[in-house]
Amino acid sequence: MAENTDPAKRPHVVIVGAGFGGLFAARGLRRADVDITIIDRQNYHLFQPLLYQVATAGLAPSDIAWPIRGILSRQKNVTVLLDEVADVNVESNEVLLSDRRLSFDYLVLATGARHAYFGHQDWEPFAPGLKSIDDATEIRRRVLMTFERAEMTDDTAERERLLNFVIVGAGPTGVELAGAIAELARRTLAADFRRIDSRSARVILVEAGSKVLPALSAELSDYAETALQKLGVEVLLGNAVTQCDSNGVMVANKPIPAATVLWAAGVAASPAGSWLDAETDRAGRVKVTDDLSAANHSNIFVIGDTAAVKDAKGSAVPGIAPAAKQQGRYVASVIRARAEGKKQPAAFRYRHSGNLATIGRKSAVIELPFMRFSGLFAWWVWGLAHIYFLIGVRSPFTVASNWLWQYITYGRGARLITGDKTNSPS
Amino acid sequence: MAENTDPAKRPHVVIVGAGFGGLFAARGLRRADVDITIIDRQNYHLFQPLLYQVATAGLAPSDIAWPIRGILSRQKNVTVLLDEVADVNVESNEVLLSDRRLSFDYLVLATGARHAYFGHQDWEPFAPGLKSIDDATEIRRRVLMTFERAEMTDDTAERERLLNFVIVGAGPTGVELAGAIAELARRTLAADFRRIDSRSARVILVEAGSKVLPALSAELSDYAETALQKLGVEVLLGNAVTQCDSNGVMVANKPIPAATVLWAAGVAASPAGSWLDAETDRAGRVKVTDDLSAANHSNIFVIGDTAAVKDAKGSAVPGIAPAAKQQGRYVASVIRARAEGKKQPAAFRYRHSGNLATIGRKSAVIELPFMRFSGLFAWWVWGLAHIYFLIGVRSPFTVASNWLWQYITYGRGARLITGDKTNSPS
Repeated sequence: MAENTDPAKRPHVVIVGAGFGGLFAARGLRRADVDITIIDRQNYHLFQPLLYQVATAGLAPSDIAWPIRGILSRQKNVTVLLDEVADVNVESNEVLLSDRRLSFDYLVLATGARHAYFGHQDWEPFAPGLKSIDDATEIRRRVLMTFERAEMTDDTAERERLLNFVIVGAGPTGVELAGAIAELARRTLAADFRRIDSRSARVILVEAGSKVLPALSAELSDYAETALQKLGVEVLLGNAVTQCDSNGVMVANKPIPAATVLWAAGVAASPAGSWLDAETDRAGRVKVTDDLSAANHSNIFVIGDTAAVKDAKGSAVPGIAPAAKQQGRYVASVIRARAEGKKQPAAFRYRHSGNLATIGRKSAVIELPFMRFSGLFAWWVWGLAHIYFLIGVRSPFTVASNWLWQYITYGRGARLITGDKTNSPS
Repeated sequence: MAENTDPAKRPHVVIVGAGFGGLFAARGLRRADVDITIIDRQNYHLFQPLLYQVATAGLAPSDIAWPIRGILSRQKNVTVLLDEVADVNVESNEVLLSDRRLSFDYLVLATGARHAYFGHQDWEPFAPGLKSIDDATEIRRRVLMTFERAEMTDDTAERERLLNFVIVGAGPTGVELAGAIAELARRTLAADFRRIDSRSARVILVEAGSKVLPALSAELSDYAETALQKLGVEVLLGNAVTQCDSNGVMVANKPIPAATVLWAAGVAASPAGSWLDAETDRAGRVKVTDDLSAANHSNIFVIGDTAAVKDAKGSAVPGIAPAAKQQGRYVASVIRARAEGKKQPAAFRYRHSGNLATIGRKSAVIELPFMRFSGLFAWWVWGLAHIYFLIGVRSPFTVASNWLWQYITYGRGARLITGDKTNSPS
């Protein structure tokens, strides 16, 4: 079935999604005797760990996103398609695109995740999440527009509502957004307005759990919480948001009026599970076998944020870039071995390389398997590590000089309000 | 009337538009004893001479646009308003904004120009022009999407239509767009597609007049035409577009099927003339007196692309950045002199500093009052001059390194398709 029966035809590998998982799967097959088609809804690969910087006007979209075609242009066995997958036919081994079908010998589903509102999908217009470039420029537009509106209004209550920023969820994205918005208000914009004092803006981080950065040790979580508070962020732990609308949010039965609410509280996997009619976990992730293929479909692999994978200790592999990369590389090796009639590699094993998060521009927390550290030194390690990861995809000079310039001047050059200024709900 | 009658109150100067003219007027008043309000519909000042680079994916929007508040944050006598002017009441000396009025002692209208379709406004959806960041990202989206669609289609005629790019108007913007799109197709994208050869794209520059870059000498025009042809641009001179719709354009009674038509053929001034009920020229520019004030309204000045100004020889001052800057500086000196009760400076005199345009990344034409030159050396002069002009507004390192990186790699890192991919007419 999966194996190629016509010897004249090279096996066709279809990869859906050009995030870290899909891209590393494609690269892992660069010397394999297969034809690859990689499909994505966007024409760019996104360096998601820095997306919050675009949302807070620190970096430009093109600093952290690169055309998929450009990344893969030299890999001649890859065809890139800008298209959307509607379904998968597991009987005929076909992927259904917007207006055609594509048959495959091997399929890799690396379709990522979207934000989840835990049954409150109607909150989305009031509390956008951060997954794509368009999400980020929309959040940037909203954040900057609220300061503009606050400068213009004569209504004190409305001004207060405009200068309240609520971030829901204290994982890395929520922490990084809160820190960056606090710095935007306290430093970057401090001299820009005449009628309001942007430093009076409140940045409120709401978390249902009992600590910030729950994946980290108690010590680093505490450090991060203190660092956030030093930046002026109010941290509300153990409180879920119970209502969200155009006025703001309800937390612990108290209303917090806020024109800007950002959602960083949860993710749900893409619909890959329903395409395969496969068993999923609560977050919609497909439960996979130990070679990352779907149950009963040994030629269909599911990786990255779309898959529920366990590590050697039985804990869930986290939804972070290094995990997706390892899985992409692994399925490439499995497919290559099968296509070449060789012995399949042993079961996938996740190697955890660490967790990290930044708090503003002076502090970060880094937890590696063998050590943990925090503070300014950690921030520089974080910065250098990210510049290192960016090398090869875009000009490292550009990103490095953007950051250095920002660091020296406290400026945020990318604070452009683009798109339609009128269609905001607030 | 214009002069301040209440000695306790500083004169209020309202500047509409934060382009080169408005910004230089504001800066020219930094030491004047006045209160300034500068109003713009956008929150950013745009370096328009490089806008074509954003439209062709060479630079990111934030490389050439900077928040107005950031530029003026240290000038304490300036308040920035993000708002739109609906009208001017010349009797009561008030500017009408979206939901309020603002009274002024002096008014500077520096509202620029939009593209003009010479009575064919219905062509706009099919042939967008290039004036704002949103225009540029929309053109970038369209240009990149046509290559994606060409890669997907099996219809030969449709593929040809998708790979035809028509640019209407051979002034600097048209020439620069044509050169940049030709290089995008011939070099940057050459290895990116598997089913189409992007190098087979046709780039057609249509001009109703008899030469490209009509403001330049015959020698430089001829040079530019040859340089365009070497890049693969087809130059059609002496031919106006007589029809434009979703299929393409009609030129000399022949249809040219084209999914992408870009309009660089003409500009019309903003509605400032109708606000003042003033006499305008054919392009809608307000005819001004020799201190750049409107006839019968000595406290209202009109500058930049909105004004019809003559130079010492009686020719029209061109609609270019240096002219707007000189006019902005001049009206600042007039207002300052009047506010301080000093003698008003002599009539405005335009000093022409030159014309220039680039053709792709290897060639430029520069015409200065005392010399003219062209070719690779001119390109470098152009590049260094622009980096010099950008210094002080954004990180010169960033722009310089972006360009250097592009120059070395032939890459165009900013080729992101953002925004709604479905709402294109083609």
